[in-house]
Amino acid sequence: MAKNETVKNGIFPMGPKNDAYAKFFTGQSYLQGLVADPAVNVGVGNVTFEPGCRNNWHIHHDGFQILLVTGGEGLYQEDGQPARLLKPGDVVVTHDGVKHWHGATKDSWFSHIAITAGTPEWLEAVSDTDYAKAEEGAK
Amino acid sequence: MAKNETVKNGIFPMGPKNDAYAKFFTGQSYLQGLVADPAVNVGVGNVTFEPGCRNNWHIHHDGFQILLVTGGEGLYQEDGQPARLLKPGDVVVTHDGVKHWHGATKDSWFSHIAITAGTPEWLEAVSDTDYAKAEEGAK
Repeated sequence: MAKNETVKNGIFPMGPKNDAYAKFFTGQSYLQGLVADPAVNVGVGNVTFEPGCRNNWHIHHDGFQILLVTGGEGLYQEDGQPARLLKPGDVVVTHDGVKHWHGATKDSWFSHIAITAGTPEWLEAVSDTDYAKAEEGAK
Repeated sequence: MAKNETVKNGIFPMGPKNDAYAKFFTGQSYLQGLVADPAVNVGVGNVTFEPGCRNNWHIHHDGFQILLVTGGEGLYQEDGQPARLLKPGDVVVTHDGVKHWHGATKDSWFSHIAITAGTPEWLEAVSDTDYAKAEEGAK
């Protein structure tokens, strides 16, 4: 469990339960806002996922998203592509309009900094079957 | 020296000596690029400063800079303001047009993620006198 404690006690706070976005997630996530400033075009937050937790498929319109992985083990998948296994230090750039999801692996907590521009469109949840396939394909 | 080892062995690589920007720094810095993508309007890098190292006064025009402190102890100062002492987990937002500098304290290594938009204008170095005053005022 050492890795899980590392995620929960990282450099940036884990923050409270992510109630505001809970309807767009499967499982429990936590969100600590880091930057929400009308004078800059990106928001920054620290997102933490319990094992098995992932967000729904979504798209950033007129924007982008950058993930900086800070702890644990996670998955990232773009529509039609195999999933990527993510570990601390990994970086993901999601381009404007690309349908994708991210989250923890089934047995590990996971945390990333998210740097986000534009307007998100939230889509369907990642089914248990597709989630299991993603993890299988990424390892 | 435990803290210094922590900075040098952080989540994101320290990268090579920052030769490209050496003329805009006093002392030795290191730079690991993380995102340089023409499809997004920000660049992201991990910057590490040896003890006493700081960058010159500079301005981000038509943009901004966000610092996410990842290790050690550092300083941030905007023109005309007292310096801030920075520790892991701290966040700094520099607005468009604001003259500022950042760097390590004199006895500690320091690292931060920099998320940068716009065009930098590099100005004069932070003199030894002003650097000492900044650190004194921040503690």
